[in-house]
Amino acid sequence: MSSLLVVNGPNLNLLGQRQPQVYGRTTLAEIEQNCIAHGQRLGCEVQCFQSNHEGALIDALHGARGVHDGIVLNAGAYTHSSIALMDAIVSVELPVVELHLSNIHARESFRHKSYIAPVAVGQICGFGAHGYILALDALKAHLDGAK
Amino acid sequence: MSSLLVVNGPNLNLLGQRQPQVYGRTTLAEIEQNCIAHGQRLGCEVQCFQSNHEGALIDALHGARGVHDGIVLNAGAYTHSSIALMDAIVSVELPVVELHLSNIHARESFRHKSYIAPVAVGQICGFGAHGYILALDALKAHLDGAK
Amino acid sequence: MSSLLVVNGPNLNLLGQRQPQVYGRTTLAEIEQNCIAHGQRLGCEVQCFQSNHEGALIDALHGARGVHDGIVLNAGAYTHSSIALMDAIVSVELPVVELHLSNIHARESFRHKSYIAPVAVGQICGFGAHGYILALDALKAHLDGAK
Amino acid sequence: MSSLLVVNGPNLNLLGQRQPQVYGRTTLAEIEQNCIAHGQRLGCEVQCFQSNHEGALIDALHGARGVHDGIVLNAGAYTHSSIALMDAIVSVELPVVELHLSNIHARESFRHKSYIAPVAVGQICGFGAHGYILALDALKAHLDGAK
Amino acid sequence: MSSLLVVNGPNLNLLGQRQPQVYGRTTLAEIEQNCIAHGQRLGCEVQCFQSNHEGALIDALHGARGVHDGIVLNAGAYTHSSIALMDAIVSVELPVVELHLSNIHARESFRHKSYIAPVAVGQICGFGAHGYILALDALKAHLDGAK
Amino acid sequence: MSSLLVVNGPNLNLLGQRQPQVYGRTTLAEIEQNCIAHGQRLGCEVQCFQSNHEGALIDALHGARGVHDGIVLNAGAYTHSSIALMDAIVSVELPVVELHLSNIHARESFRHKSYIAPVAVGQICGFGAHGYILALDALKAHLDGAK
Amino acid sequence: MSSLLVVNGPNLNLLGQRQPQVYGRTTLAEIEQNCIAHGQRLGCEVQCFQSNHEGALIDALHGARGVHDGIVLNAGAYTHSSIALMDAIVSVELPVVELHLSNIHARESFRHKSYIAPVAVGQICGFGAHGYILALDALKAHLDGAK
Amino acid sequence: MSSLLVVNGPNLNLLGQRQPQVYGRTTLAEIEQNCIAHGQRLGCEVQCFQSNHEGALIDALHGARGVHDGIVLNAGAYTHSSIALMDAIVSVELPVVELHLSNIHARESFRHKSYIAPVAVGQICGFGAHGYILALDALKAHLDGAK
Amino acid sequence: MSSLLVVNGPNLNLLGQRQPQVYGRTTLAEIEQNCIAHGQRLGCEVQCFQSNHEGALIDALHGARGVHDGIVLNAGAYTHSSIALMDAIVSVELPVVELHLSNIHARESFRHKSYIAPVAVGQICGFGAHGYILALDALKAHLDGAK
Amino acid sequence: MSSLLVVNGPNLNLLGQRQPQVYGRTTLAEIEQNCIAHGQRLGCEVQCFQSNHEGALIDALHGARGVHDGIVLNAGAYTHSSIALMDAIVSVELPVVELHLSNIHARESFRHKSYIAPVAVGQICGFGAHGYILALDALKAHLDGAK
Amino acid sequence: MSSLLVVNGPNLNLLGQRQPQVYGRTTLAEIEQNCIAHGQRLGCEVQCFQSNHEGALIDALHGARGVHDGIVLNAGAYTHSSIALMDAIVSVELPVVELHLSNIHARESFRHKSYIAPVAVGQICGFGAHGYILALDALKAHLDGAK
Amino acid sequence: MSSLLVVNGPNLNLLGQRQPQVYGRTTLAEIEQNCIAHGQRLGCEVQCFQSNHEGALIDALHGARGVHDGIVLNAGAYTHSSIALMDAIVSVELPVVELHLSNIHARESFRHKSYIAPVAVGQICGFGAHGYILALDALKAHLDGAK
Repeated sequence: MSSLLVVNGPNLNLLGQRQPQVYGRTTLAEIEQNCIAHGQRLGCEVQCFQSNHEGALIDALHGARGVHDGIVLNAGAYTHSSIALMDAIVSVELPVVELHLSNIHARESFRHKSYIAPVAVGQICGFGAHGYILALDALKAHLDGAK
Repeated sequence: MSSLLVVNGPNLNLLGQRQPQVYGRTTLAEIEQNCIAHGQRLGCEVQCFQSNHEGALIDALHGARGVHDGIVLNAGAYTHSSIALMDAIVSVELPVVELHLSNIHARESFRHKSYIAPVAVGQICGFGAHGYILALDALKAHLDGAK
Repeated sequence: MSSLLVVNGPNLNLLGQRQPQVYGRTTLAEIEQNCIAHGQRLGCEVQCFQSNHEGALIDALHGARGVHDGIVLNAGAYTHSSIALMDAIVSVELPVVELHLSNIHARESFRHKSYIAPVAVGQICGFGAHGYILALDALKAHLDGAK
Repeated sequence: MSSLLVVNGPNLNLLGQRQPQVYGRTTLAEIEQNCIAHGQRLGCEVQCFQSNHEGALIDALHGARGVHDGIVLNAGAYTHSSIALMDAIVSVELPVVELHLSNIHARESFRHKSYIAPVAVGQICGFGAHGYILALDALKAHLDGAK
Repeated sequence: MSSLLVVNGPNLNLLGQRQPQVYGRTTLAEIEQNCIAHGQRLGCEVQCFQSNHEGALIDALHGARGVHDGIVLNAGAYTHSSIALMDAIVSVELPVVELHLSNIHARESFRHKSYIAPVAVGQICGFGAHGYILALDALKAHLDGAK
Repeated sequence: MSSLLVVNGPNLNLLGQRQPQVYGRTTLAEIEQNCIAHGQRLGCEVQCFQSNHEGALIDALHGARGVHDGIVLNAGAYTHSSIALMDAIVSVELPVVELHLSNIHARESFRHKSYIAPVAVGQICGFGAHGYILALDALKAHLDGAK
Repeated sequence: MSSLLVVNGPNLNLLGQRQPQVYGRTTLAEIEQNCIAHGQRLGCEVQCFQSNHEGALIDALHGARGVHDGIVLNAGAYTHSSIALMDAIVSVELPVVELHLSNIHARESFRHKSYIAPVAVGQICGFGAHGYILALDALKAHLDGAK
Repeated sequence: MSSLLVVNGPNLNLLGQRQPQVYGRTTLAEIEQNCIAHGQRLGCEVQCFQSNHEGALIDALHGARGVHDGIVLNAGAYTHSSIALMDAIVSVELPVVELHLSNIHARESFRHKSYIAPVAVGQICGFGAHGYILALDALKAHLDGAK
Repeated sequence: MSSLLVVNGPNLNLLGQRQPQVYGRTTLAEIEQNCIAHGQRLGCEVQCFQSNHEGALIDALHGARGVHDGIVLNAGAYTHSSIALMDAIVSVELPVVELHLSNIHARESFRHKSYIAPVAVGQICGFGAHGYILALDALKAHLDGAK
Repeated sequence: MSSLLVVNGPNLNLLGQRQPQVYGRTTLAEIEQNCIAHGQRLGCEVQCFQSNHEGALIDALHGARGVHDGIVLNAGAYTHSSIALMDAIVSVELPVVELHLSNIHARESFRHKSYIAPVAVGQICGFGAHGYILALDALKAHLDGAK
Repeated sequence: MSSLLVVNGPNLNLLGQRQPQVYGRTTLAEIEQNCIAHGQRLGCEVQCFQSNHEGALIDALHGARGVHDGIVLNAGAYTHSSIALMDAIVSVELPVVELHLSNIHARESFRHKSYIAPVAVGQICGFGAHGYILALDALKAHLDGAK
Repeated sequence: MSSLLVVNGPNLNLLGQRQPQVYGRTTLAEIEQNCIAHGQRLGCEVQCFQSNHEGALIDALHGARGVHDGIVLNAGAYTHSSIALMDAIVSVELPVVELHLSNIHARESFRHKSYIAPVAVGQICGFGAHGYILALDALKAHLDGAK
């Protein structure tokens, strides 16, 4: 049985409270519940982690080696600036699906650039909280070898 | 019952034959079959269209008004250069899910820019042929009002 | 009696239906009628052509050689990307008045650049459907040698 | 009866004398006469102003508030550098039609940028002295609500 | 007793009338009254000057040498383009506090650049008419040697 | 009675010790004392926080929701790179006054860019330790509705 | 016996008529005759195709798979903008020699960029109609393994 | 006998007083005296003009037509921003020698760009007040046809 | 006897495990052992610190004041983005030798930029784990005044 | 009988030894032999020159005036940086065919720029040693007036 | 008695022969004669040197230390690319007057940049062969301390 | 016994005389002596070469093939502009250690770019004359296979 890690970055702890017109009304707790429940449907164990600290996110990725089979990563604003997270993904040698709640390519130009993308399997953005379900599906399919 | 249109752009008719290390081995005919079948699972009618002609793709988008409820669009290389396609999407006032087989953000920098993205609901890329299934799921959820 | 060609590019077939707050409510059929009627006032024959296909627009420009005396060209989104249209204008050696319904210089920066402009007599933009009347006036005056 | 102001900026006092191959042979006095005469045809009073001083142009725009109904503005070289003129246009809350004798988009690249354009109704360029007639027509139609 | 000069640039004569959602409803006369009154509270004489002419602003700065002890300068749109004002500030060898009513860093990118800033003591922006009070406080403290 | 939070970012704990020619000789403890004392003059409670950790600063901003009425933020070097802090400010929906000891616009070009500015009320920079007093004044006036 | 395809893009149907000072006086029909004749000298069958439609050029390239051994491609203005043609060349897995009548590197800067070049064997430009003979020679030598 | 005009732009009225380490200690009055005296040595009448107003400088250039035979122009900071001055030089059809006291190419990068240079005979910079003597020599030699 | 601090940044805790083709097979523990041993040969005490947290690295640099005589800093990916680390180095007023295992100038362009370099004594990169030995030698020689 | 000069620039003396996967296995001596032999077939005398010194290449071009009728120039890496070579070509007023062994447009972006191209008849690249034969053919045809 | 060195760079040996419409008809020998003669009028010994080799120019500059009192340098095309010449000028610690025959600021943009300028006393350009006389005058005045 | 070549580029012959505040007071002769002496300590023969001529440096690198085992290269200012040197390093297939006396990353931005770096083993800069010792150590360790 696969074990998947869902990692959320800065400000995502405020989900459902902050800018609902951009990010929707679902809270992070609800999203994490939905991920765990959807994991059960997919036959996977799902664990969740959130931090506003870039270093803590790197530590979490490092800790996934040998523990999890793949990662869904919503790195929030660190997506656009953190080469350190990029390097961490390469270091842990696990498949990462990049996720964003909003369509980052339809927002300010500094949000179009992703340091995660070049080292991720793929990117899903713009579908709100439902994106996590799509990302888990995509990760599961990737692990199952679907192309 | 919703009706969804799957539109594929230039060179995608050669899918499964060209550069399988980048785009996978599934042919376009197989993908279109999978989309129709998955549409049935979602309770949607799915129709498919492919052309290498930018103008024909615009015509197809125009023709979707009042006929379909949403569009999955893999505009291929026109993604990166066609403002006319961008305008066509805005004109038809239908939700569009942008899809790419490969992770365009991990390839040459001229593939990072998308004129589709600012007018699409969201973007899915990097998951090969399986991406069409994810895109139909995302479009269906969008039409159902899931956020 | 001069013969003038009015050429409209991609998405302009949807005029009056799409984004009326940007492009106004007059349909392309009405605009073409107005152009023909205004041509009569100017003592000119006016013919009209529209296509969403870049190649068809080039073919139409080529076909104007020896047939028409000048061209009013609203190349739509191809204005901003088509060097081929630029070359076609140079090839046909006819005066071209560039027209845009909206004020392209007040919109997204990628709409500020025109490949038509350097080979056109002049540019008129921002006056909606009335711009076609102004463009025909300008073209007629140009043909009459007004400076 | 509408009152329209025609404002000309730096070096336009030399019209007809300087670089006739670029700007034509009509003098500014003739242009202003033509504008007043054409105003009569349109049922509008037309007044004219010219200065080489950016500040004087701003003062003139300010002075148009509550006096004129619209402005035709050929800001000359200040078009490309004067944010202060841009702000003045916004301040006076009158419709402005931007005019240029030459096709600025076919000249040096620093003449392609206009600070006037984003706050103007529209732009007309490349038609020489006849452009003032077109601009008055466009302004009149705009005031009459034509779209 | 210190003497302070408050200099306002282009379009600021229209304060309170133009774009109140951006610049507030206080008129320039009221602001100048407030500055003089606040100067009295600070034990300083305050004089005020406004012009829409770049050259007149330079002349005013030159005239401050040996007459005033410091300057509050809201150069309006000339902030972003006038190297001549920058040079004038250096020439007069008086401390200048740069002021803007709106938060220029939150507006169009061409308003982020200031030629005043590199030769000013500091910059205050975004606080509307109250900014003048803050700027006088800052200038007074600077003259008093507070750091 | 309003409650205001003063947040200081990286390296500001060394104030008074590091580069006094740039940042002055007042220590952070003295500044915080001055802020609290000045708060009393303004009839506000002032609390202070400093961290070198971007994540801790985000956490502190989050913690201000429902606790404080406004924030004075000197984000130090994170000003120029942290989109996450920018997002945090938007999330907490409290007015933020951006502060810098030095005139960042007169230093290296990479210090001219602020991710804080577009989401702050205004910016004050260049007035050394006295800037905190100005920032508290500005924040108080903003909360009192002064424009 | 090798079979070679000569593909010409937009506006090349007007060769010999348009801008002879840039492109020479030989017509496309003459060039195609010369290519076929030179093919006979090289012991190769030569076929020719021209279209102003980007999509038709892509279709023609696709159709060359399994039919021809190599391609001489003068993509005209699409050279500088068509990523779709670039992808088509990669898809068909045939050697392509890029040809231009004029020296594109000595013209406007937007003609210096070629999307064809990175996927072509080599480029020949600046030698007018004679360039087709050189290109066929180069393609033949490439197929014969000359280095 | 030739008549030469020496035009000085913004802030040059403060010469000898401002930044002597950059611009030297000679006053503008002394420079103008030196120019007139040197003109006598060259057998030329020399007249001088200075203004801080861009418009006044344009007016002065216009006024030189038919009055003077050539111009030495130190446009100060307007050198780097004034397209209007550039146009004025072209309009008056007189030879202009561009002069700068300091070596503008050794200062801030925004001083490297000159709008005067493309329409001037030549440029002399970096030689302080002596540069005016060199510029008059150069202008005289140019008028005498020396090459 | 000098005391030297060796500071390692993000992801360097995985040394020897991650991407050995880029970073070699020596673990961080081994490197730190080698540094301590080489310090003994140089007659210096060597201490080591590693963290994935930018804030913790800043804290460590701050803590070096008055404790160590110099620092070898491999800031990993923070090298390319952390102005805060740059400021911390300036604050602590200790000589810093910048070190990278790989030749950052031969990798992606975003790794060519270093915010550490302008405030470091010098940079050593590309020599793998042996670089630490070279860096300690360089730091020791710098402290000994060798030039 | 025409006399042609073949000039080779830096590092081309190592041809056949260095990077054969990029430049092929033919030595410079063999290429020069082939050029001379092919010259005989074309009825031309061919002379060859190679140097690693930019100045020596300029001297060689200068020496060709009045001696040779045209030049085939492979300027190697100087192609991308030498304005002096560009000027030398213009000075000698002889037709130059630019040649590169590799397809420079398919390599690093700094190799796409050529200072030779704007002053050459045309460019041939990507065909290895065979390119010299093509270049001689192109030069001969150019001299014979073929277009 | 001062000793001055006049150094000419690449292609200047062809002066009077190449592009007389750009560089005039005077030969280098005549210019050098004029320089020596003008030196006598100034009471200076003048020596001259020319080379097409960047290295030889550097050697010549090095050789001027302790031999000459100042240098007039026309570095030709190396002006725009040679950091090594820039460093050589700094090394020899002699005043250098930068000279160009043509007005480099009115030519291609790559000729606007000078690596010589930031380390030269000043620049003279656009006055043809007469520029050498002006440059010697400027150098002499500089050595005499005129400002 | 290994043989190492130390190559020094333009202006380094003046070491110890030019700009000692930047480059130190050690002469090139002393540095070369130190290199030879340190080579003996390392058990390597060290030879040295210096030239101001780019071509001579290329020749020297070519001559090292089959003669030396590795190269320490201080290319001076050619580092930043010479693609020809870059190609020469690739051609000779020997390990090169790039060296700079000053910290090039802390100087003008045009010195940050190195064409040597992408083809060198590593880079050492900022440690003055001692850098040569470090570079020889690094090269020796590289040849010994230390990582």
